[in-house]
Amino acid sequence: MKYGARNMLKARVKSVKSDEVMSLVKFDVEIPAEMASVLTTESVQDLDLKPGDSVHLVIKAIHVLPVRD
Amino acid sequence: MKYGARNMLKARVKSVKSDEVMSLVKFDVEIPAEMASVLTTESVQDLDLKPGDSVHLVIKAIHVLPVRD
Amino acid sequence: MKYGARNMLKARVKSVKSDEVMSLVKFDVEIPAEMASVLTTESVQDLDLKPGDSVHLVIKAIHVLPVRD
Amino acid sequence: MKYGARNMLKARVKSVKSDEVMSLVKFDVEIPAEMASVLTTESVQDLDLKPGDSVHLVIKAIHVLPVRD
Amino acid sequence: MKYGARNMLKARVKSVKSDEVMSLVKFDVEIPAEMASVLTTESVQDLDLKPGDSVHLVIKAIHVLPVRD
Amino acid sequence: MKYGARNMLKARVKSVKSDEVMSLVKFDVEIPAEMASVLTTESVQDLDLKPGDSVHLVIKAIHVLPVRD
Repeated sequence: MKYGARNMLKARVKSVKSDEVMSLVKFDVEIPAEMASVLTTESVQDLDLKPGDSVHLVIKAIHVLPVRD
Repeated sequence: MKYGARNMLKARVKSVKSDEVMSLVKFDVEIPAEMASVLTTESVQDLDLKPGDSVHLVIKAIHVLPVRD
Repeated sequence: MKYGARNMLKARVKSVKSDEVMSLVKFDVEIPAEMASVLTTESVQDLDLKPGDSVHLVIKAIHVLPVRD
Repeated sequence: MKYGARNMLKARVKSVKSDEVMSLVKFDVEIPAEMASVLTTESVQDLDLKPGDSVHLVIKAIHVLPVRD
Repeated sequence: MKYGARNMLKARVKSVKSDEVMSLVKFDVEIPAEMASVLTTESVQDLDLKPGDSVHLVIKAIHVLPVRD
Repeated sequence: MKYGARNMLKARVKSVKSDEVMSLVKFDVEIPAEMASVLTTESVQDLDLKPGDSVHLVIKAIHVLPVRD
């Protein structure tokens, strides 16, 4: 199974909260991981990103796609 | 500083690859983290997600937003 | 009317389910269509995508924008 | 294999065009399909969506995730 | 013409920069506007958003869809 | 504080409407702003975008990330 996405994290479900239409699911991610971001080269220059730099990676929950093997 | 997003991971830049318009940046995420996903309640039911279940979380790199403190 | 998006499908509404804030709408798409995906060149190489290959295209419902003429 | 996404289309690769960082892949989708959209209930009311109505579904190519079985 | 999206801004093209696959287009938005955000109720509570509060709205350029009338 | 995103608008909260899982927040954006869009070069050519052209920028509310300083 292969995905056209750079980020795939192993995770365990912790909780599920549901409205009729939408749900919020929380997961524990236990294993160190590589993450990738695609952004404009202008943004890379504004942030002046260089190997070794510390950042935070912000991801809206709506963009996280759970997949079951 | 507070973000209207459920996911925020501490990360360290590993590499930067750039075209003129778009760049791909790789990060190491070293610390265990909680992640959250918002999806339709129908999808939660189809996947039959329950606490303790193992899944993969797939995230397109374009949805990862690096932020510098 | 022209959109800065590669994918536009003709569809017919099948059902609407609503919470107060969010709704899920189902559509029938009857006509064969061309679809396009933008992804990292790394992902294309990992998937080894070549003309003629069969794949599935996964799209979160949140990314589908209905438009009325 | 199960995805936390409402939309999954069978498709065949037609062409691949690549920069160093990003690629555009075109697909043929041959089979009629059900599609789903999540949007605000306000938008559903503004569009006045009812079963039987004709619409276009616009999807930016960046939100289409190819998956190989 | 009606869109299933809460945000629609009138804008004027300022510049276009292109790679072969992807382009970055800059616009001037001159007119005051209402914007809307959908986020988890948890995030609203964490940010403690109340009428009158000042915030910044961050939007990745990839999520901005230009449309021509 | 720096974000890996091209668009950052100053805004004031106008209203909040919440389900248990998801909320819709409305904002006033008072100050003229520059906005940026990333799209395929094919879409730029289809739209024939040139400096001075008028367009609408459509953004689904789910892609708007409120941030508090």
